[in-house]
Order: sequence, then C-alpha cells, then structure tokens
Amino acid sequence: MPRPSVREQLVEAAADCFQERGFNGIGVQEITRTAGVPKGSFYNHFPSKEALAVEVMNRYAVARRPDMLEDRTLAPAPRLRAHFRFLAEDLERFDFARGCLFGNFGAELSTQSAEVRGQVEAALENWTAKVTAVLEECRAAGTLKSTLDSASLANFLVNAWEGAVLRSKVTRSRQSLDDFFALFDSLVDG
Amino acid sequence: MPRPSVREQLVEAAADCFQERGFNGIGVQEITRTAGVPKGSFYNHFPSKEALAVEVMNRYAVARRPDMLEDRTLAPAPRLRAHFRFLAEDLERFDFARGCLFGNFGAELSTQSAEVRGQVEAALENWTAKVTAVLEECRAAGTLKSTLDSASLANFLVNAWEGAVLRSKVTRSRQSLDDFFALFDSLVDG
Repeated sequence: MPRPSVREQLVEAAADCFQERGFNGIGVQEITRTAGVPKGSFYNHFPSKEALAVEVMNRYAVARRPDMLEDRTLAPAPRLRAHFRFLAEDLERFDFARGCLFGNFGAELSTQSAEVRGQVEAALENWTAKVTAVLEECRAAGTLKSTLDSASLANFLVNAWEGAVLRSKVTRSRQSLDDFFALFDSLVDG
Repeated sequence: MPRPSVREQLVEAAADCFQERGFNGIGVQEITRTAGVPKGSFYNHFPSKEALAVEVMNRYAVARRPDMLEDRTLAPAPRLRAHFRFLAEDLERFDFARGCLFGNFGAELSTQSAEVRGQVEAALENWTAKVTAVLEECRAAGTLKSTLDSASLANFLVNAWEGAVLRSKVTRSRQSLDDFFALFDSLVDG
C-alpha cells in the first residue's frame, strides 16, 4: 500500500486529537507529533488549525453515512432507526468518550470561530433535511405516530440525539442512547 | 454596598469568561484581567483554573433554579413547562450564544478532567431526578400522555433539552427550543 501523504497523516491524526482533546485542548505541535510528520510541514498543507478542523469535519460528515437515509431498499422507519443505531455503534467503539464532532465543536467553538460555527450549522441542517424526508416517507407509509410537523420533529430528533450523545460522553454509558431509542420507538412505528 | 471580595470578583468574571470562551479558550491571566484583580492574587483563592471552574458550576447549578421544580403551588405539568421556559429566557438574554455551562463543559472537558466530568454528571443526574419526580406527579394527575417509564422519559427530556440548547448556540436562534416545546406539549398535557 502506498504511504499516506503528509496531508492525509495530518487529517487522520487531527481527527483523533480533536475528538479526544477538543480544539483548544490540542496544539499544532501535538498534532504533527501524533501524525509523525515534521512540525514545519503543517503550514505547507493548512493555513491554520481551524482550516484543518474544517477538513476533519468534512470527512466526519461523510463517515456518518448520511447516504443510509436515502437507501430505499429499506422501509423508512427501520431505515431511520438503523441510521441512529449505526451512529450509536460508532460511539460505543470508543466507550462513548468521543461524542459527536459536530456537537463538540459546536459547544466549544460557536463563539470563537464563525467558520466552524457555520460549518456545524450547515452539517446539522443537511442531516435534519434528510431526517425530515424520511419522516415524510414514514408519514406517507402510516408509520409515524406523532402528528407534529415533520421538519419540527426532525429538528427535535437531531437535537435530542446530539444531547443524548453528549450525555453518553459525560456518563460513559449507553443509557442516554437507550432512552433516545425508547422515545423514538414511541413516535415511529415499525 | 461593600466591594465584592477578590474571590467573588474572580468567580463572577470566570462565569462570563467560561461561557463565552470555554475552558481551554481562556487563561488565568485573562480571567484576572476581566475580574480587575492582580494576576498574582488568583492562586491565593484557587489552586487551579479547574477548581475555579468547579466553583462556577456550583453557582450555575443554583442559578438554574432547580427549586422551581419543587414548587407545589403550581400543578406539575405547568410547573415543568415553566422551568424550561425560565431556562429558555436566560439563554435568550445572551442571544443563545452561551448555551448551557453543563453541556459546554461536558463536551469540552469530559476526556480531560475527571473532576469536571464527575460534577457535570452529578449535576445532570440531580436535575433528572427532579424532572422524574415532576413527571411522576403528572402521571398521578393524569397529565402525562406518554406511557414511557418516568425516569427514562426524564432522562430523555433533559438530554433533548441540552441538545436543543447546543443547537440554539450553533444557530443563534430559538428555533430548536420551540421544537423542544412542541414535542414536550405532545407528551405533557395541561
């Protein structure tokens, strides 16, 4: 296998660093050390730590598999549940310690970086739009028990998920995710 | 009025600093400058920035008025709604930019400070226990529409609130709080 480029090494190391230490809790020097690349090489690839954070978020958005929400081979209710379960499994792999990068950066950086705030906002909006579409499909299929507006309910569920993930990070347990699924199942049938 | 003590000035300044910049985003020097006290005075009052954060969280927990949840002069459903509305008004005073200190510290510091993580966990548990008790009262009064276990529902609502507050911080709008109340009203009657 070809050796990953310095840029790739930086992005991969930073993904771990940011998830484990936040943005302000880690410096460029520690990221380059974790990546195993010379410190001086950083600014050949990224103008700032913030620019690297933006690239890490772009990768993270894809790794969350939003495409699962558009997989019409599954009925909408089990498809939506499967997507949240996929995200839960990813959190469990790290004993719930990492949380969601969008939530972490949103909490830490919304007042400090307009660029990061804007990217988190757009990422959550994109996700919410896809969840809204699946809820509309559920409604058409008669598997949505709630009478709330789909967009409002999708927004609520996305935020409730982010809150449950944050709580799981604090408690290091899946209890809050289980409570999310219990409520989810009371709203969505099948 | 007597002049606040240096310790008080530090706690008050740090509350603003931590809410606006997070924990790692602000140093002791900036906190002492904001407080208008000599930098050297800090360690006479707190052994570390972490110890100051713990004191700020203690104050924050009281300012959130958990006692409202035990005010039996209000029926349980309107009492619970009034408490969340009180929290929403506090967020609106700062244009939603601050978010919840528990959520902010939980997201930023859970992997970095066992002490902060433990305090956030305990604070959210205390709050959840009070919400559970009010939901039990709602159930006894026939104003709880959900058949979910009260403790699980309380946990879900507390986490959904934290997620909605985080989203409001990212979007700088009350939309996520409105969506929370819409779902809340579909679960709790009266």
